[in-house]
Amino acid sequence: MATKDWKELVSEKKERQAATIPKEWILTNLPPKETLNVIDFPEKCGLLTAKDVEITNTEVGVLLEKLAKGTWSAVEVTTAFSKRAIIAHQVVNCLTEIFIDRALKRAAELDEHLKTTGKVVGPLHGLPISVKDQVSIKGMESTIGYVSWIGQYAVKNSVLADVLESCGAVLYVKTNVPQTLMWPETFNHVFGRTANPYNRSLTSGGSSGGEGALVALKGSPIGVGSDIGGSVRIPAAFNGLYGLRPSYGRVPYAGCVNSMEGQDSVPSVLGPLTNSLDAVKSFIKSIAGQSPWLLDPLAVRKPWNEDEYRLADHGQGKPLCFAILWHDEFIVPHPPVIRGLEQTKQSLLDAGHHVIDWKPFKHMEIYKIVGAIWAAGAAEDYRVTTSPSGEPIIATMGLAVDNPDLMTDDVPTFRSLSEGATAYQLWQVQKERRDLRQAYLDNWNATATLTGTGRPVDAIICPCAPYVAPPHGLNKTANYTMIWNALDYSALVLPTGLSVDPTLDAKKPAHAFFSDLDKTNYELYDPATFKDAPISIQLVGRTLEEEAVIAMGEIVDSALKAKAAPSKL
Amino acid sequence: MATKDWKELVSEKKERQAATIPKEWILTNLPPKETLNVIDFPEKCGLLTAKDVEITNTEVGVLLEKLAKGTWSAVEVTTAFSKRAIIAHQVVNCLTEIFIDRALKRAAELDEHLKTTGKVVGPLHGLPISVKDQVSIKGMESTIGYVSWIGQYAVKNSVLADVLESCGAVLYVKTNVPQTLMWPETFNHVFGRTANPYNRSLTSGGSSGGEGALVALKGSPIGVGSDIGGSVRIPAAFNGLYGLRPSYGRVPYAGCVNSMEGQDSVPSVLGPLTNSLDAVKSFIKSIAGQSPWLLDPLAVRKPWNEDEYRLADHGQGKPLCFAILWHDEFIVPHPPVIRGLEQTKQSLLDAGHHVIDWKPFKHMEIYKIVGAIWAAGAAEDYRVTTSPSGEPIIATMGLAVDNPDLMTDDVPTFRSLSEGATAYQLWQVQKERRDLRQAYLDNWNATATLTGTGRPVDAIICPCAPYVAPPHGLNKTANYTMIWNALDYSALVLPTGLSVDPTLDAKKPAHAFFSDLDKTNYELYDPATFKDAPISIQLVGRTLEEEAVIAMGEIVDSALKAKAAPSKL
Repeated sequence: MATKDWKELVSEKKERQAATIPKEWILTNLPPKETLNVIDFPEKCGLLTAKDVEITNTEVGVLLEKLAKGTWSAVEVTTAFSKRAIIAHQVVNCLTEIFIDRALKRAAELDEHLKTTGKVVGPLHGLPISVKDQVSIKGMESTIGYVSWIGQYAVKNSVLADVLESCGAVLYVKTNVPQTLMWPETFNHVFGRTANPYNRSLTSGGSSGGEGALVALKGSPIGVGSDIGGSVRIPAAFNGLYGLRPSYGRVPYAGCVNSMEGQDSVPSVLGPLTNSLDAVKSFIKSIAGQSPWLLDPLAVRKPWNEDEYRLADHGQGKPLCFAILWHDEFIVPHPPVIRGLEQTKQSLLDAGHHVIDWKPFKHMEIYKIVGAIWAAGAAEDYRVTTSPSGEPIIATMGLAVDNPDLMTDDVPTFRSLSEGATAYQLWQVQKERRDLRQAYLDNWNATATLTGTGRPVDAIICPCAPYVAPPHGLNKTANYTMIWNALDYSALVLPTGLSVDPTLDAKKPAHAFFSDLDKTNYELYDPATFKDAPISIQLVGRTLEEEAVIAMGEIVDSALKAKAAPSKL
Repeated sequence: MATKDWKELVSEKKERQAATIPKEWILTNLPPKETLNVIDFPEKCGLLTAKDVEITNTEVGVLLEKLAKGTWSAVEVTTAFSKRAIIAHQVVNCLTEIFIDRALKRAAELDEHLKTTGKVVGPLHGLPISVKDQVSIKGMESTIGYVSWIGQYAVKNSVLADVLESCGAVLYVKTNVPQTLMWPETFNHVFGRTANPYNRSLTSGGSSGGEGALVALKGSPIGVGSDIGGSVRIPAAFNGLYGLRPSYGRVPYAGCVNSMEGQDSVPSVLGPLTNSLDAVKSFIKSIAGQSPWLLDPLAVRKPWNEDEYRLADHGQGKPLCFAILWHDEFIVPHPPVIRGLEQTKQSLLDAGHHVIDWKPFKHMEIYKIVGAIWAAGAAEDYRVTTSPSGEPIIATMGLAVDNPDLMTDDVPTFRSLSEGATAYQLWQVQKERRDLRQAYLDNWNATATLTGTGRPVDAIICPCAPYVAPPHGLNKTANYTMIWNALDYSALVLPTGLSVDPTLDAKKPAHAFFSDLDKTNYELYDPATFKDAPISIQLVGRTLEEEAVIAMGEIVDSALKAKAAPSKL
């Protein structure tokens, strides 16, 4: 079908991309490849003014106040984040589409509106927001890393782009993803690999790895990712960010580009990656305030519920009972992950909350069911999409893939593809999955006798993955996040403020392994490999309970911060 | 697999059913088969006391008040409805499981509770509620008319049964359905056919035809049906009732028996069939008040929203703009249906509302898509379910089916079954369907310029079917209801108070036919055939907008009643 070789199409696309980077922001003092930790590079590279640094280091709540008052103009703020995004891109390769001119024009209009009317356009007035490549913006490409889709320009905005603009946000860059979106790392033939800014030998995670790296480098105050099995939360965790996986339909998805379209049983959702929890709240509350269900037929009619945010269903939060899942009886997490959970537990106990253990319940069955649902049509979907260009279907995220001729067969278990299924077979699996959702809910409700609050467990706390950010190609499982997609629970990743410390995170003696993958995972660990990687946790509430999950997240976050710096209290 | 012939299994089951009918309620003065209209029979048969008649003719709101005050005991009310249900069963064959002893025991407990505590158990205290055979009740069979499922006793309640009992309701009978549930009429090999009480030569509709006939005969104040393509609304329309098809997940479905399980793309929902609109409101509000999302993982977290009921999204209802769909450009409805719409239009104009036309928008495309989604696995589902018993898969709802040896191949178009599809093919169809939902929503939003209210159309009014209740075997299309299942719109059927009148509903000259089915449908019409059949309309709101649809339904209902009896105002 394609008249050109796929590599030629990629070259042309990369040239087009390069041309969108403002020349004056191209750096000649980039750190050498051997410099692994580049998290401080943006502030040290010399491109940012003191004010740029101040702006980009400001929490979203304060930023929005200053923008609304006109203390900082939208143009100033957009310029600062754009510069920092371009710096980030040069060290971790996180961007796909770059449209800063257009953003600055929009920012100037917002400034003019504020000046003329004295009013903001909406609750996110003047705030730059970066979006995953899937989020269609009129006139821009949304290749999601498929060579086949190079040159397809969106004829209209996705609903989310419209809603964010109605809120006053400024869109300025789109971010990198893995081919097919079904990898928890970030590499594709069009844009290449996104590295982890804390340690470039490690993965940024995926599939929203571009957002994870960009937001960690503070090149964006809020990044929009998508999450079908952990794709917001894995990059959030690996890059030390907050990341929310809302329930199906809470954030409008209509008009976004996607893989495996029509698979609406365990669908992808959109959610924010941020440097602060107030940004997560601003994002969800602002979008709900725009009644997205009037624009997207799959968006749920649920306005922001302030009662739920005040924890009306959770005894007003005094005290809460959290349950910690230490491992899933399949792969035991590495020492830093366990240390993060222990720190969280102690912080919550110190803050007067109850903490019990969460016993894994049919997790393996649920993993298998989700895998079977996706595998029912995934292989054909990938073939149909890649065949027009002839680009190879990627079989590993290891470094070998940077040269596609060297690709190995290094496929994580959850990506294993069958030759598909019949619709009737798919229905049988979907039925099993429904029954597992029921069983898990019943199991949760049954904890009411164990919590000491009279209520079932308020939220589950668990690992985000059985490791902190691993080396490229070694993120072999998304089970600790995927489980909540299967159940459609609202799940928030929070940084603990800790990172890998060789003295505290020594390798432990081997345990009785649950599985071959458990053994492989155990053998992978060595504190030196994971140097500087952030340690995160996951907080899980019930379906469509985003308000309460954010509020409980604030409680956990405060507890962790109080423990880390008790003198500040 | 079965050790007995399926007919033998049916005989045994029928004997068991007969044994559950209180002997003193078995009538010897049943009307002859030639008596078609039996709607007045319950009050004339001599079994009901004056108080039984008073109770069973009382609107649900008043019933609940009297029950709550103890003016009428739950035992009295349950007895009255049970007697009337058994009378109804003897004239239209509407019941499956009958458990009046158990219901009376429960009613006595409720009376005792009220006496002892002075408080009701819940908002439906003492109210008998009948349920479609699918709604599992611990210890009862839920064959849904499959011989293969005879003898399978539920080990626990469905969530809805639990929720209704938490509300104080009394469950006492289950009602008849068609084999596979995928017919808009009601016949199966186990329980046989349910006829229309207004004219027993006509169908009661389906698949909740047992409820339709039972509630029309006032053998139940609220019947619970399910609706995947019109299965609440068609029997509601054909039997002159109110019937609500709520959006996916508004009423908990967990634990109900079903056909085509795992098909979660255009799923079935549960909804009420009633003699008054206040009963619809009581049902939905009571269930939402029990937080069913804590019990059923697929139930939507949406409490009853009083603001939405007050029409906050619809200018507080003053005035509203309705749009009437007169036909779908595929099959033109018969004269009585058009007269019902005309009467509704004039009533609403008289009440000061705006009424415009609703142009059919991609309806044919949507019908085809829904058919393809169901057909993807339906044939295999039916084969797998029926093969253990060897019962024939029903191919017609015509009278020939009463003798299975005479079955013809008289299959309505929407039931045509392919040999199935692959999961990938199903995904492609589901993707098209999502795009059609988006297009329909955009189309609706675009009506804002046409309404004169500044808002898009507040609700659509349309036929329930292209005919009033047709003769058995001739309900060949569910398109006028199925369209809203495809779009997941909240849809309410209301009686107009009119019924077929040969002088007003004369056959019209032939029009230019849209399709062969349109011609067949035109030829079917003759006012004599449809004698006494009620004329109903359908009112359609947006997804999860049950509150507003009920409120707008009240406005339409009042307007129709005001027009019918202006002197009473």
